[in-house]
Amino acid sequence: MTENGLPPMRSLFGADPLDEFATFVADWLWQNMQGRANIEIEAKLGLLIDRQTNMRLQLPVYNETIIDARALGVRFESNMSMKQHASFNKLLNELVAYSTTLPEHERITYKHQKETDFFYDVQMQDTGETVHLRVTRDSKTQSVKPNGVVTKQRIADLNVFCPARAYDYRISINTETPMPPPPDTCEPTYSREKDRLSYAHQNYQVDLTQVLLPNKPHEPNHELELEIRDATYFMQLAQDTRLRNPEMTQEWSPYEDQVVVFLNNIRLLIRNADTFMA
Amino acid sequence: MTENGLPPMRSLFGADPLDEFATFVADWLWQNMQGRANIEIEAKLGLLIDRQTNMRLQLPVYNETIIDARALGVRFESNMSMKQHASFNKLLNELVAYSTTLPEHERITYKHQKETDFFYDVQMQDTGETVHLRVTRDSKTQSVKPNGVVTKQRIADLNVFCPARAYDYRISINTETPMPPPPDTCEPTYSREKDRLSYAHQNYQVDLTQVLLPNKPHEPNHELELEIRDATYFMQLAQDTRLRNPEMTQEWSPYEDQVVVFLNNIRLLIRNADTFMA
Repeated sequence: MTENGLPPMRSLFGADPLDEFATFVADWLWQNMQGRANIEIEAKLGLLIDRQTNMRLQLPVYNETIIDARALGVRFESNMSMKQHASFNKLLNELVAYSTTLPEHERITYKHQKETDFFYDVQMQDTGETVHLRVTRDSKTQSVKPNGVVTKQRIADLNVFCPARAYDYRISINTETPMPPPPDTCEPTYSREKDRLSYAHQNYQVDLTQVLLPNKPHEPNHELELEIRDATYFMQLAQDTRLRNPEMTQEWSPYEDQVVVFLNNIRLLIRNADTFMA
Repeated sequence: MTENGLPPMRSLFGADPLDEFATFVADWLWQNMQGRANIEIEAKLGLLIDRQTNMRLQLPVYNETIIDARALGVRFESNMSMKQHASFNKLLNELVAYSTTLPEHERITYKHQKETDFFYDVQMQDTGETVHLRVTRDSKTQSVKPNGVVTKQRIADLNVFCPARAYDYRISINTETPMPPPPDTCEPTYSREKDRLSYAHQNYQVDLTQVLLPNKPHEPNHELELEIRDATYFMQLAQDTRLRNPEMTQEWSPYEDQVVVFLNNIRLLIRNADTFMA
């Protein structure tokens, strides 16, 4: 009781427990990214699809839940309707407009880019190994973008089921290792067009992308991704905490704060989704 | 990035999202308790047991999850080992000792009670209906406790699976309606002995109880319950928020704060459980 008008204590123990969900994600990210270079951390908005029914996963739970996708036989589909995409575009533009009234470091900046990704299978001269290369070019000028030649490797995925929302999400760790360009004699195996609106805010970036594959020129995919902009800084924060505290006795740190803001962003985007037909 | 040394903004939207888990529990409690008198709100620590395997529920999820117990075919068992019970007793005694250094309204107070519950099936004279009565007596003096004659009705349960912890928990709403004592001619159908340590802290109370049933005199049940002490005050807080805001557009209020402290307490007790063999 707060007969004296004071707010209640946070618990018998005098404090809040650590946020189990956020610390799970923070630990998972650290375990999978530590010791790696050129990491990319992103969350995609989409749906967890049951491979048996080809419908959205049904699980008798009521809250946001990190699931074992293999055990449940689900795959993640990163797509949304064009209408939903337009609605996110409008929302994000409004946030940009509003943020012009804020101090500079709190503002959201906006960029529109059209890029073409060309994919190559290149045999390495030294090892004989075949490497999958992605070359990203400016769609208009066809010049290769800075750091535009990479080989991408999937490290780990974390799938989050959101039964009370219109979308689920997946957090992914990839490496994007810079590579020399493919030999001129090499032909791309395929290509895709990306029409991307990027909204940068502090260490986070929302990419709203329309992706066109040559075999489906009239059926673009619509994607929303949230990315950590400076993954090196993010990893440095994790390292500062984890290496100073090798027991990993859980304590809150600026690293967990970055993870929470990452989760806050994807959660608030999902909660602000309008539910159009997919 | 926090190049300027300032903490990051909480999100693109400038704020944290509402805690989905806590607001779900707050809404569920309000929906089930509104309009009722003599409500009792409690959380019990225990295990969700799969009815098929008779083992703890296995579900491929990683975080604290509110489940549909019927759909999953599970029941809740409120029990723990004597060793675990002793360990909670020690922990709570330490919290009591520590709290003596705190301002009075932050202290934890302690009470040891031995009570006997007698259960009666009484036929109501007016309606002919059979009512299940519980009469609670002081085990030593055998005098009926204040408000010691009630009929208890189960209103609703919310089951929470904690895959990363040694225990799950269940939140229950019951009504305990005061009743006239049963006629002297009426014999109890059964009785149970309760040896209870109660730890009261602000509007919460932890009951650590050893329950003896006459048919199992050497196998006491060991239970931990967390109860809302003043449920009327708790319900009043909910009402203040919900009736002022009939759209239930979710806003944080002192009611949600009470719910979070309730959850904080049960979560921290579970996290501080030692894992002995059940």
